[in-house]
Formats: sequence, C-alpha cells, structure tokens
Amino acid sequence: MKRIITATLVILALLRVAVAQNTEKTIAERLGYPRDAKLLIVHADDLGMAHSVNAATIKAFETGLVNSGSIMVPCPWLSEIAAYARDNPKADLGLHLTLTSEWTSFRWGPVTSKDRVKSLLDKDGYFRLTESEAASKADPKEVELEITAQIERARALGIQPTHLDSHMGTLYQNKALFEVFLRVARNHKLPVRIAKSWFARADYLPALLNPDDVYIDRILDINPTVAANDWAKFYSDAIKKLEPGVTEVVIHLAYDDAEMRSATINHPDWGAAWRQRDFDFFTSDIFRKLLQENQIKLITWRELGKLIK
Amino acid sequence: MKRIITATLVILALLRVAVAQNTEKTIAERLGYPRDAKLLIVHADDLGMAHSVNAATIKAFETGLVNSGSIMVPCPWLSEIAAYARDNPKADLGLHLTLTSEWTSFRWGPVTSKDRVKSLLDKDGYFRLTESEAASKADPKEVELEITAQIERARALGIQPTHLDSHMGTLYQNKALFEVFLRVARNHKLPVRIAKSWFARADYLPALLNPDDVYIDRILDINPTVAANDWAKFYSDAIKKLEPGVTEVVIHLAYDDAEMRSATINHPDWGAAWRQRDFDFFTSDIFRKLLQENQIKLITWRELGKLIK
Repeated sequence: MKRIITATLVILALLRVAVAQNTEKTIAERLGYPRDAKLLIVHADDLGMAHSVNAATIKAFETGLVNSGSIMVPCPWLSEIAAYARDNPKADLGLHLTLTSEWTSFRWGPVTSKDRVKSLLDKDGYFRLTESEAASKADPKEVELEITAQIERARALGIQPTHLDSHMGTLYQNKALFEVFLRVARNHKLPVRIAKSWFARADYLPALLNPDDVYIDRILDINPTVAANDWAKFYSDAIKKLEPGVTEVVIHLAYDDAEMRSATINHPDWGAAWRQRDFDFFTSDIFRKLLQENQIKLITWRELGKLIK
Repeated sequence: MKRIITATLVILALLRVAVAQNTEKTIAERLGYPRDAKLLIVHADDLGMAHSVNAATIKAFETGLVNSGSIMVPCPWLSEIAAYARDNPKADLGLHLTLTSEWTSFRWGPVTSKDRVKSLLDKDGYFRLTESEAASKADPKEVELEITAQIERARALGIQPTHLDSHMGTLYQNKALFEVFLRVARNHKLPVRIAKSWFARADYLPALLNPDDVYIDRILDINPTVAANDWAKFYSDAIKKLEPGVTEVVIHLAYDDAEMRSATINHPDWGAAWRQRDFDFFTSDIFRKLLQENQIKLITWRELGKLIK
C-alpha cells in the first residue's frame, strides 16, 4: 500500500512538472521551435536617421545576414526608408520610437505639433540630447501623444511596422514611461523589445507584463569598453557562447563617410567608424559561418508578432 | 539778353540734372563706389540643408571667392552651420527663409508649432514640394509667423543674419507674400534680395518699395537650359559682360557625393552634380582671374545692410 501511495505521489509530481512546463512554454517553443533552439534576430537600429544609415542597412539586408531593423520617424531621411518599406513589404521593419536628438551638428524634433509636447523639447525646439534628461522631463501624456503620432505617421507613409523599440532606451528609463510604451504597443498589437535578461536591473518590468505579452530571452549589444580591434572577437565569442532561446543582437550600421562622420562628430561611441565596424562584421563570411557552425537560426519580429492575439 | 537767358536756362538744366543725380544715387554710389564700378556678391544658397552643402560652401568661403551665403533654418544641418557662424562672426551669412521641402527622400517642416501654420504643410506634415503650391495655399499670416520664427531661431543659435532671401523664391510668388516678406525684413532692419532687373516681370514690386529700401541692380543665375559642359562658359561669358552696378550671382554649392546624390535623387536640376559644377567653377583660378581682368570688386550684404537706417 505504501508503495502504491509513493508511486502515485511520484506520478502526480511528474504530471505537475509536465503541466508547469506546458503552461510555461518558452518563447522558442511558442514559436514552434525546440526548447534548445538557438534563435537570433540581427537587428539594425536608427533607420531614417541619415542616408549613410539607410544605405548601409539596406545593403546589409541584401546579404540576408541582417534581417530586421527599426525606423526613426522624426528623422530627415524617413522618406527614403519609407520608400524601401513600401517596395519591400516582407522586410522586418519596426519603429525605433524617438524622443532624443543626440548629435550636435544635426538635429530633429517631434512629429506632433510642438505646442502639444513642450515637455519633450529643449530650448531650441528639438528633442533633448540625452535619454536621462528626456525621461526625467517628459510628461507621460505627451510621450503617449508623440509615440502614437510616430506610429500613425509611419503607417500613413506605407510602413507596416512589425515591432516597436525605443531609441536610446528612453522609454525604459522609468516605470511611468514604460507603462505608456506598453499600452501603446498593446493597443497597436505590436511586440516590444523586452528581454527577460533585463528583469534583474529593471525590477518594475515583470509585474507589468501579462502572460500574453511577447518578450525575448536576451539582448546582445556591444559597448564602448570594447576596443575597435576587438570588435570581431567580441561578437564571435558571443555567438559561439549563444544560449538557447531568442536573442536579439542590436547593431548600428552606417558607412564611415563624410555625412556620418559629421553627423556624429565628437562622439566616437556609436559614431561613424563604430557603425562601419558593425557593418563589416555582420555582412562578413565570418559571421555567416559562425551562424552555420553554431546551428543558429535567424528569426524575425514578424514571427514574434504573430503570437499576439 | 537772349544769350544771357539761354545761358541761364542751360545752367538751370545742368543744375537740375546734378540735383537729380544726387537724389537718385545708384546703389553703387550709395555704397561709396564710383557709378561705373562693377560690384559682385558671390552668394551660395541652401546652407544648413545637408552636410555636403555646408562642407562645400565653407570650403568655398575659405578661398575668398565665394563671399556670402544664406541659411535654411528648418533644415537638419542647421546646428553645424550655426556653429560656423558663431566661430566666424564676420562671415556674410543671411537667412534663406524656407517654406518648401522640395526633395522626395529627405524632408523638413516648420520651426513654428505645426498647429499654428497648417496652411504651409502637406499631408505628411512637411513643407510643400513646390514654390507655386506653397505660395497658392499659404495663409500670409502663417507665413509671417513662420519666417519670424526662423529669424528668431537663427538669432537664438548665435547667427546674426546680414540679409534675407527666399528659398525657391516662394516669397516672391505673389504680392501678398512679398508684402509680408518686406514687412518682416523692415522690422528686423535687414536687406532683402531684390533686384531692379526683376521689376519688369514682377510689376507689383516697385510700388511697394520706399526710397530708403536697399536693392541691387541684378541677379545672375544659371538655369537648366545650360548643358553641363557649358557651365564654365556660361559663367565666364556673364562675368566678362558684367555691367556696372551691384550684381548678385546666386549659386548652389555641394559635393557630388552619396549624401547629396541621394538627397536630390531623380532631380538633376539643382542636383548633386550641378552643385559640384558650381563649386568647381567658383573656387577656380579661372574665376579668380576673371574677377581681376574685368576689374570686378566683391562686396557683401553686410555693406548693403549698413545703408538701412
């Protein structure tokens, strides 16, 4: 009798694990991949900012190795990338919602009428230079107005965004802004750049998410502590060590040309040479081979968006 | 007796001519030059539009052969040229008041809050593509608001404009807009690009001008009927035939580079190669020698502005 009870308890425990595993499917499993699949989105930020960014990113898309990107609606070269989006409706293009204008020689401001979003503007009528200043001074209601206007403007130009993210992470700077971001994204049924790997440092995040929300496992991005000569090594090592699940590698592509050098003048971080290095690595045969050798499959935000009901 | 009367009449007639000549001083004479002096302003339009325009024009300024220019305040590269203006307070920089956004890949909109200048905007919230559409739809009150805002923004950035002109000539398209332009210029005590040679085709012009207004004799500019190979010949011939008085040659400088080719895509007129040809001629030794050989003196709008009380 004791054996029967023990056996029954073991079976019940196993069932509970199975049920838990079923209800707690990983994002990879929800997409229809095995739990141990290594899935990667290679995502270029800042489309629309400058011609150099558009040209390099479109060139990288053509290699098939960079397969996703997001567009800055307030920026001067929006029309050029909107034409590309209309001509390439299958491209995985989202919106890089923008509340900062971070360069000094080359600037932009809101889509919304300035009188209605005064908390987002500096004294010259542009967006503010830094994400921290932008976040600390922004009225969340004005943020909602402006990011909604950016989505509507993009759609009016024929862009059908597959996802949303936030330029310089301004919309992740505090809970109030993130709540606005999440509400706007849910209203538009669009997935948002959110990674489980952020939960530790942004403790407000998990409580705001619903089981239906779509978020990925981790973001991989390079940072200014990496020396220029170590660029390929940094990315190669990260790809070799890539864990199962969905990773997004966030990159910044442009050519190291006169336009980009002047746009990013006095800012080597995320500057023209930085973006050329990203372009060179992510369009290289080295990167192509690393994907193959490590059984990494490229996926898009379009696939993730299909999980949203 | 008859002889005395005749001599008196002749003297009176000569006096009348002398008085008339005195009160009807030419603009050259008002500037302190002889009536037969050949005075030339070599003026580069469109500063602030693109980095390529800024870089080529600044390079041309350094030769001393191009000695004046005007800035488009609503454009993305304003900050770069504003920094140049602050660093070079003697540069002859005016404002190229802007109410059109004429390229298709690369666009801009008003300085004023959009809600307050709706008549100036296309459906995408940018300025309109053509000067004729802009002029026919613009509410003159909104034009006054916007061009005043452009002057104020420029001054806030440390630009001390020496003169005003109008991008694509929108403010000369009809009498109502020109009246606004003239009123704003007089309020700011700034000279405006107006040429006596225009009076025949813009018949409303002379009646609006006061004796105190400062205007030049003629504008010289190249046009799309000139073949690329005839560029230097067109300008050389015009300089050799230059008449006495004040002439402004209006040119458009930029490099024929990736940024400019993409900004002006599908628009060869005033496009990247056009601007490179202007740059090549007006920074050349051929142009320098033509100025010397034809006793042409370069003057600036700053000198003209000093005539305004």
